[in-house]
Parts: sequence; structure tokens; C-alpha cells
Amino acid sequence: MNKIITISRQFGSGGREIGAKLAEKLGIPFYDNELISRAAKESGFAEAAFENAEKKASNSLLYSLAMGMNAYGNQDIGFTHLSLDDQLYLAQSNVIRKVAEEGPCVIVGRCADYVLRDNNNVVNIFIWADIEARKKRAIEQYHLKENKAEEEILRSDRRRANYYNYHASEKWGKAENYHLSIRSDYIGVDPTVECILNYLQCGERE
Amino acid sequence: MNKIITISRQFGSGGREIGAKLAEKLGIPFYDNELISRAAKESGFAEAAFENAEKKASNSLLYSLAMGMNAYGNQDIGFTHLSLDDQLYLAQSNVIRKVAEEGPCVIVGRCADYVLRDNNNVVNIFIWADIEARKKRAIEQYHLKENKAEEEILRSDRRRANYYNYHASEKWGKAENYHLSIRSDYIGVDPTVECILNYLQCGERE
Repeated sequence: MNKIITISRQFGSGGREIGAKLAEKLGIPFYDNELISRAAKESGFAEAAFENAEKKASNSLLYSLAMGMNAYGNQDIGFTHLSLDDQLYLAQSNVIRKVAEEGPCVIVGRCADYVLRDNNNVVNIFIWADIEARKKRAIEQYHLKENKAEEEILRSDRRRANYYNYHASEKWGKAENYHLSIRSDYIGVDPTVECILNYLQCGERE
Repeated sequence: MNKIITISRQFGSGGREIGAKLAEKLGIPFYDNELISRAAKESGFAEAAFENAEKKASNSLLYSLAMGMNAYGNQDIGFTHLSLDDQLYLAQSNVIRKVAEEGPCVIVGRCADYVLRDNNNVVNIFIWADIEARKKRAIEQYHLKENKAEEEILRSDRRRANYYNYHASEKWGKAENYHLSIRSDYIGVDPTVECILNYLQCGERE
């Protein structure tokens, strides 16, 4: 299996766990926060800045304007006319392209599907789940409060959608952007991993 | 397997063939044009009117206005204040609900996923494919001319999207509307059928 697999996911859908298990089954690297660290090291950005980029993208225009003004003093990475948000995105994109060149891997989030859109070796997956299942998962695994869980989940999805729509100029969660989109709570995490593996294996044969 | 399976599909993606093969494998009824005939018989509409409804939905507003004016003389089916387009949709929806009540089946197109949205026994599938694969299929199977194929495919998709967006007030092709969305040309028709079967079986166990 010589593929780069990107996973986009709704908050609380189990997408990250599914990606990690998939990478483990395939014996290939898994990039998530690891990707951030690597990008940070290579571009000279602080890790914290990367971690905040996606979180703060709730309102892309305001964020870009605000961060853009702060960024103009920064001469370190050679694209100082861009907002900090765009600089972070470009640095991340370089890292994504680099790990993809190194060989098969699983990359969760960060517009990797869009960054690698011209690479024929990429298979894009979208994971979503029913809101009730996501609430349950968010409460159990991320310890969200029961009365706040739905609000936080929907806010997180809006952030992810805004981040994607801003950088990729494409719609997050549009079926046509992914080889396979799966409602994970209907079958469970492990069967979802199997379902993706099965799709990948069929793709190898085709 | 006690499920109603709805299949939405891009033109040329093989969705209809996949639905038919799925129904055959499961040994359950398959509804497509058959559904039209049945709806026509039960509501008193001519079959031709149903066949034209989806085709003509390219511009929903104009179509509704135009057809609505012609429809006001029709007293046959009891909802004469609606446009003909809406009357057709309601008659179709009644048929879809009726066949779903009768037991497991596969229904292709006609907003069946939306019509049956409150039925917990329904699994919704979306089939799409790369434009080059769809052109090849459309030329081979539907005998479209090579220089017209792409235009006709995209026009057909716009019709389907308009029809869905108008009646369902939802976005056609949004991953979150389907349990499973599959790019069929990447693995082929038969593996896509297997992939759906596998998902359904896992859902039974969950």
C-alpha cells in the first residue's frame, strides 16, 4: 500500500482515532500534532502559534486582519507580506508536501487533502457522525460538560469549516472532495477502519 | 438485512448499476423508473409527466411558475394549489414512503433520502466519480458524443442538485447527508457494491 491517506473529520466523530488505528494497521507514519512540531521546527515558528492557528480561524477575515498587522515585523521565513495565518498555512503545507514525498502516511486535518490535490497517490477520507454520538464521545473522551457539549462541537466544526474554506477555497464536507465519506457512529470505530482498509485494497487492485 | 437503502449519484458514476446490483445481492426490490410508473398509476399522473419532472428542474423557480399556471385547472389529486412540480414531488414522496413501509428495498434518486429522513431504518449512499471516468462511461453506455459528454454530464448534475436543493432544502452531495459516500471509479462498480454491503453488515452488528 503506497498511498498517502488524508483524513478530515467532524469534532467528536472519532476521526483522529480512526486515522491512528489505520496508520497502525498499515504500519505507516501518522501525522497530527507531530506535524505541527515538525513544521514549527523547520520554519522557525513557535509550536504554540501553530496550535492556535486552527483554533483562532473562527472568523477568517478578522483573524487575518488582526494577525496580519502583528506579523509584518517578522522577517524570519521570507514571506512577510502575508498574514501570520497565511504564513502558518504555507509552512504547514510545505511540511505536508515533504512528509508525503517521504512515503505512505496518514495525515489528519490541516487541509492536507487540498494541499496534496495534485498528487495522484493520495486518498482522501471524511469522517462524520450523528450529533448525539459526538456529544457522547466528547463528554467521555474530551470531558466536555453535558450542557455545553453540543455548542462546543458545533463551534469546533465551524472553525474547521472556516479554516478549510478560507485556505482551500473549497467546501469542507463536500462528498466530492473525498474518495470515501463515512458516518462512523453507525458502524463503530474499528469497522470504519476496516471499511477504509477495504476501500484502499480495492483501489490497489483497480 | 432489514434496511431501506437510498442511492444518490452523479451522472455517469455508475450509481444506478451499483444500486441494481446491491438490490440483487440483497434479494430486495429495486426502485428507479419502476417507482415512476407506480407513482403515476396511483396518483393519476401520466408517466411522461414524472419522467419530465426531474429533467425540467434545471431552473426550479421558472419551472414552478410556468408549470404552476398550467396546473390550476387540475382537480384530480386534491392539492391543486401547488405547482405541478410540487404535486409530482408529493405524489412521488407518497410512493417512496409506501414502498419503504412494505420492507427493505433500494431506491435510486428522487430525494428518497430526504423523504425518508425520519425513518431510522434508512441508510443513505452517495456515489460520485472522477469526471474523466464519467465521460468514458457516458460515451460507452449512454452513447453521448465525445465533444458533448462533459457538458451534458455537468448539466445533468446541475439538474439533480437543483431538484434536490429545491425540494429537500438541503445541499445535494453534502457528505453529512449520507452514511457512506464513495468515489466509484477508484475501485470499480463491483467493489463499490461490496463496500456498501460491508458497511450495511457492520451496521447490523453495531
